[in-house]
Amino acid sequence: MIVEPGTLLAAIDSPDDLKKLSPEQLVQLSQELRQFIIDSVSIYGGHFGASLGVVELTVALHYVFNTPYDQLVWDVGHQAYGHKILTGRRNQFPTNRRYHGMSGFPKRTESVYDAFGVGHSSTSIGAALGMAVASEYKGEHDRQHIAVIGDGAMTAGMAFEALNHAGVEKSNLLVVLNDNCMSIDPNVGALKEYLTDITTSRTYNKVRDELWNVLGKLSKFGPNPQQIARRVEQAMKATLLKQGNLFEALKFRYFGPVDGHDVQHLVTIMRDLKSIPGPKLLHCVTVKGKGYALAEKDQTLWHAPGLFDKITGEIYKKIPDKPQPPKYQDVFGHTLVELAEQNDKVMGVTPAMPSGSSMNLMMKAMPDRAFDVGIAEQHAVTFSAGLATQGLVPFCNIYSSFMQRAYDQVVHDVALQDLHVVFCLDRAGFAGADGPTHHGAYDLSYMRSIPNMVVAAPMNEEELRNLMYTAQLPENAGPFTIRYPRGEGVMPEWRTPLKKLTVGTGRVVREGEGVAILTIGHIGNYAVRATKELAAEGLSTGHYDMRFCKPLDEEMLHDVFSRYRAIVTVEDGCLPGGFGSAVLEFMADHGYSLPVRRLGIPDRVVEHGSQDELYKECGFDAAGIAAAVREMSGKVAAFAPVETVLL
Amino acid sequence: MIVEPGTLLAAIDSPDDLKKLSPEQLVQLSQELRQFIIDSVSIYGGHFGASLGVVELTVALHYVFNTPYDQLVWDVGHQAYGHKILTGRRNQFPTNRRYHGMSGFPKRTESVYDAFGVGHSSTSIGAALGMAVASEYKGEHDRQHIAVIGDGAMTAGMAFEALNHAGVEKSNLLVVLNDNCMSIDPNVGALKEYLTDITTSRTYNKVRDELWNVLGKLSKFGPNPQQIARRVEQAMKATLLKQGNLFEALKFRYFGPVDGHDVQHLVTIMRDLKSIPGPKLLHCVTVKGKGYALAEKDQTLWHAPGLFDKITGEIYKKIPDKPQPPKYQDVFGHTLVELAEQNDKVMGVTPAMPSGSSMNLMMKAMPDRAFDVGIAEQHAVTFSAGLATQGLVPFCNIYSSFMQRAYDQVVHDVALQDLHVVFCLDRAGFAGADGPTHHGAYDLSYMRSIPNMVVAAPMNEEELRNLMYTAQLPENAGPFTIRYPRGEGVMPEWRTPLKKLTVGTGRVVREGEGVAILTIGHIGNYAVRATKELAAEGLSTGHYDMRFCKPLDEEMLHDVFSRYRAIVTVEDGCLPGGFGSAVLEFMADHGYSLPVRRLGIPDRVVEHGSQDELYKECGFDAAGIAAAVREMSGKVAAFAPVETVLL
Repeated sequence: MIVEPGTLLAAIDSPDDLKKLSPEQLVQLSQELRQFIIDSVSIYGGHFGASLGVVELTVALHYVFNTPYDQLVWDVGHQAYGHKILTGRRNQFPTNRRYHGMSGFPKRTESVYDAFGVGHSSTSIGAALGMAVASEYKGEHDRQHIAVIGDGAMTAGMAFEALNHAGVEKSNLLVVLNDNCMSIDPNVGALKEYLTDITTSRTYNKVRDELWNVLGKLSKFGPNPQQIARRVEQAMKATLLKQGNLFEALKFRYFGPVDGHDVQHLVTIMRDLKSIPGPKLLHCVTVKGKGYALAEKDQTLWHAPGLFDKITGEIYKKIPDKPQPPKYQDVFGHTLVELAEQNDKVMGVTPAMPSGSSMNLMMKAMPDRAFDVGIAEQHAVTFSAGLATQGLVPFCNIYSSFMQRAYDQVVHDVALQDLHVVFCLDRAGFAGADGPTHHGAYDLSYMRSIPNMVVAAPMNEEELRNLMYTAQLPENAGPFTIRYPRGEGVMPEWRTPLKKLTVGTGRVVREGEGVAILTIGHIGNYAVRATKELAAEGLSTGHYDMRFCKPLDEEMLHDVFSRYRAIVTVEDGCLPGGFGSAVLEFMADHGYSLPVRRLGIPDRVVEHGSQDELYKECGFDAAGIAAAVREMSGKVAAFAPVETVLL
Repeated sequence: MIVEPGTLLAAIDSPDDLKKLSPEQLVQLSQELRQFIIDSVSIYGGHFGASLGVVELTVALHYVFNTPYDQLVWDVGHQAYGHKILTGRRNQFPTNRRYHGMSGFPKRTESVYDAFGVGHSSTSIGAALGMAVASEYKGEHDRQHIAVIGDGAMTAGMAFEALNHAGVEKSNLLVVLNDNCMSIDPNVGALKEYLTDITTSRTYNKVRDELWNVLGKLSKFGPNPQQIARRVEQAMKATLLKQGNLFEALKFRYFGPVDGHDVQHLVTIMRDLKSIPGPKLLHCVTVKGKGYALAEKDQTLWHAPGLFDKITGEIYKKIPDKPQPPKYQDVFGHTLVELAEQNDKVMGVTPAMPSGSSMNLMMKAMPDRAFDVGIAEQHAVTFSAGLATQGLVPFCNIYSSFMQRAYDQVVHDVALQDLHVVFCLDRAGFAGADGPTHHGAYDLSYMRSIPNMVVAAPMNEEELRNLMYTAQLPENAGPFTIRYPRGEGVMPEWRTPLKKLTVGTGRVVREGEGVAILTIGHIGNYAVRATKELAAEGLSTGHYDMRFCKPLDEEMLHDVFSRYRAIVTVEDGCLPGGFGSAVLEFMADHGYSLPVRRLGIPDRVVEHGSQDELYKECGFDAAGIAAAVREMSGKVAAFAPVETVLL
């Protein structure tokens, strides 16, 4: 199926082609670009609402600025489809987010127009400032640097850090604030309310009312105080809106708010801004999903809807012929509510991911006990630490790769004080189509280095529930991490009774001889398939679901290392320092010397693709695990039987 | 030597005693408290200027608020000496920052008055908000929660994230902004300029001038426009300062600026604030080092001056009888300038640590190429990434434990894009008297998990210089980490010629037989002492300075594992996932099965003390290393010779 671009769009293979159009033609081009995105995403999938919201912005930016010499950094990058289409990648669009295809985010290796690789939010201002300062240093004073950032991304601390620095540099930096009141979910926080204040002129109105009020009382002083007031009002308005502006406070020149869907006006104002040196901010008000009525109406659903019928708006869903396993995130969401109903100390904290983590279930059920703190992972963790000092038990749910943002807070504010915070790391392991920025590859490694920390991973829905139950018990007060993958588990009947697990105990999945497979988390299900395959070949392979990466089940490991001749470890995490290394540490500390083969995410950047494609590529799908067992089995058979030497 | 408190202070063993004084007596008490701090720090050492600056604030807070029921969180905690003295720890003061003594920071296990453990900056608002929300949830509506935060700490993103969240909660939260224009070094950034604007009423003056200007032109409208203007001005002033305020923009009620050294006025205003619900900010202007003239004058020097003569102000310095080795930080600072002189692509970035990292040398020598970006580690890294996209080679110097703040930026903005940024991690390993919040324990582990990353550690000054030289060469474009400890190296004659090292190569320090010691970084010098000691006993122990934790010198390791019978690894870093684990991974991947003993920072919270005391406690001082070698040596001797089995 081929998506046909409109007549103007069909002629645009680079921003140079775009610049041949008249400003009036940009209106039609914007329509064509919007239609192309709707057509493409409906049949190829991908992120939707964000790119529709910035169609006019994208056209205006490439029309006015001299990209790629002028450098354009898209924050997060969900919204950069239009940018990709206008910069020579229109025909690649069917490969968007597919294995070996185009990335769903801007990426430096993909195009010279992608000035900075993104995926996580709020990096654009700092990166663009670095570019701007470099240009200044190199004497490229005509070069422009533009960061396009949403009002949601603006709540993350690093955006503020960058504003604070940029405000005192003289570099040519334009921040385009794409204010649509949304992240994936509706934005929260004081900044959002502030932006609403200024776009609706609430602040200005308050001051004006005050002025009129005072002047009303002054009538004795002259013939026409109201007329004076009107003149004063006009003269003050500009001054006031500038002086009273949060961005002006940070030494940015503030322009706006302007209609982010009026492409001709955007062109005019951006042309003016080009000649103004130093840091400046253009506040554009846009609508996420603009131009597709359903997407404008339910912006969270249409953030990334999957495939849909663009005419009827029907989102295609596979109708299963039998009950399917739920997503891990939903097991988390429902179980959290269950636990909170039983234990009034349980609280919920999410940094701007209520729907992605399914924390929205608790936010709806008990709004005074679940908090969306904005795109603010650092704060989410320290806020949770504050709750925990008061005897509460917060479940702080953060995607594995986003938890990298809060590593210091986990160490410094939670673990060193041994506070009872339960970290639930969703999207651990390969994130799939979102690619390397979103792979939760490092958490087993970076979490198990931290003192006092328990690190666990469930192999199925029941284990997730039991781990969550176990984590909130008073006897396990202290930091407790549970990591689980994106997507579905394996148990259609997942509402099992909540049972306590003993921290640091694994589970025998299958007894065997010769080679034992040690797994952590969901990936253990692939080992189950592998051992079945191997059994059919006559190899009776042991399989142990360790459940805890820290503390390890030492009793089980002593047993395994005493009875088997070789070990294969499997984890959906990075090999350096991960679960396999923890097993090696145990071995070294206890003097075991069996051969060990570690399977997991290799020490290189693994690109995007489906989770299954990536498991296969990295050799830890069922076939890869079976192959490793066969290889180890062959190795140990080649040697005469040796007793394990306890050194 | 005992420091005698003044008569009022002598009677204060808790805030209850303080509350017995009259407001007038607080002036004298403040003087006595200040004198006690001067007397104590001059003979026992510790942080100085910060605590002097908040004497009156501290007295007023404990006088007005019902601590510990009301919860007081000190940001960073350098400034909490007065707090500790007033809360029952006056007599413990001589043990401040000493091994097994009182911590230099607030600490929950030390006192119920220490509501939150601190050390790293900018956590106080988020933590206090967590406490406030918990109180709200528990129905403790009378409970107050106070965060005391400096204007420097306010530049870190997580403080902004917390303000953004607090602004929309109704909880009782008072943020006391301790505005002294300083961190350890003078503050930088737009926020600082903004605070200066409001304390000097610059913003207000601009608006007023505009108003007078306009009304001057309006004289035809009435008999006395100037009089009207004066009335308008008065009426607008309050409104304007509120509406135009950055903190009011974030939905905080803003009060101030007030004189932070007028204790009686502080008491009055804090009493008023107690009855105002919701989030509020009190802006106090203070002077760091207040009351000790020299400290007021050179605030960076007197941040933590060491011991001094309180009368003359002479800071005691040991006068060495022969040339001493320099501090690693100074070797970094001087070498960076040397490299920048040779290579015009070299730039410097520090997050508010110009003097602590010695980056101030480059900032002075080439101010357009070295940047202090404020307390903003996240931004420091992403800003560096931006510079690197333009072909520059930034040296981004961040203390090891502070780099935890920027883990995601290292992964996402630098490593995934394989950008050429050199991370120099000062204070790696045990930080000494600053204790667990500042120990750089985790960096080897968290850095080596990251793809594309080189991780190196010099054993001496020459290696630091050569690693820095090597890291900036075009052939090593990509992320490169060099970590080194606090304090002095070992080479008085350290200005050695710069030499290229081959990435991933170690150095034979000493050939031996039986047991080989593999070390990474400065701690290798302790192994040198150990091998000398062992040689005297007849044990010829090998010693290899690996230099690179990643990539490992595989050639050297193959040689070592072929020739020796047992291995001891030594690192000044955490054992889980660290350098020793990297060695175990190499072994497992290549089928070696020698016994390995790993020495390093154990998997628990190690408290403060001198670096030597902590090395000893954790068993990797020279004696500990020698003991481990003897033990391993005994073990391998107990078995018949076995050939290493390559599985």
